[in-house]
Amino acid sequence: MSREVTILRLGHRPDRDKRLTTHVCLTARAFGADRVLFPRSDSAVRRTVEDVVDRFGGTFELGEAPNWRAFLKAWEGHAVHLTMYGEHHTDVVPEVPDDEDLLVVLGAEKVPREVYDLVDHNVAVGDQPHSEVAALAVLLYELNGSDALTAPREDAEIRVLPSARGKRVSSLDDA
Amino acid sequence: MSREVTILRLGHRPDRDKRLTTHVCLTARAFGADRVLFPRSDSAVRRTVEDVVDRFGGTFELGEAPNWRAFLKAWEGHAVHLTMYGEHHTDVVPEVPDDEDLLVVLGAEKVPREVYDLVDHNVAVGDQPHSEVAALAVLLYELNGSDALTAPREDAEIRVLPSARGKRVSSLDDA
Repeated sequence: MSREVTILRLGHRPDRDKRLTTHVCLTARAFGADRVLFPRSDSAVRRTVEDVVDRFGGTFELGEAPNWRAFLKAWEGHAVHLTMYGEHHTDVVPEVPDDEDLLVVLGAEKVPREVYDLVDHNVAVGDQPHSEVAALAVLLYELNGSDALTAPREDAEIRVLPSARGKRVSSLDDA
Repeated sequence: MSREVTILRLGHRPDRDKRLTTHVCLTARAFGADRVLFPRSDSAVRRTVEDVVDRFGGTFELGEAPNWRAFLKAWEGHAVHLTMYGEHHTDVVPEVPDDEDLLVVLGAEKVPREVYDLVDHNVAVGDQPHSEVAALAVLLYELNGSDALTAPREDAEIRVLPSARGKRVSSLDDA
């Protein structure tokens, strides 16, 4: 894929949001995004995510964007904001260019009004309250397709193989 | 839809899992499931979910299944278990009958081996570790379609309307 996908997570509070942000990061990675940026580094989230990258491979990265406003204004690709108040994702997805890098803004608590104006699209996955993890998953699933979920990853140590019962894991170590 | 969809959440620990289980419940509701059962009632989860149902409508419910083994053995419809070790969801979804009630088993920590044997299908949304919220969303999305996400809900007090910028909410109160 030529397009890189970056997730900008607003307002991560380390104590309260640790597990949800970890789910956001792992979902972003599994569904084909390249990186997640959050306000400040969280060592617990980082440890869990880096451990998954070490074992399951690929080049997914975590980074910091302490000033979301400056970051969003300087962003040169396409930008969408996931919010239940946006346009239907089925209408927006065909409008997202595949030859520009994509930023997906994910709110936590209350999102400042300015965010709605600084992006190209405000996009809703359904019109009901649910979860930023679910919304991100479906948006990336529609953008990247189901093949992204099972694409081989570089430098993986292990790979899970599909199985009707139980667990089958293949070890890919060179050793 | 004639088929009812029930989510069985294994191993909810009230302190640690409150927010993730809330996301599971709201995702289940938004994507067209009918109920979530967990080991014991959690008043914080219940308050949040019931508040959403009161305002946004529909008949979604929470319940308890203190003994998952007995529940699973007595289940008379189709049953799938979401696990990264399962068969690809793209292969399983066409095999799920639409004229039988469906149970979706969602693990938390380590899932007992017995679960893998008591269901009709073990199903993986991708072969990477991510989030039970994301996996549930994509499975229900594939089963129920995107229309389920915007279907009108009975007795809703408010409805969110799609909007390019900002928030548009319609009040549906009879008063």
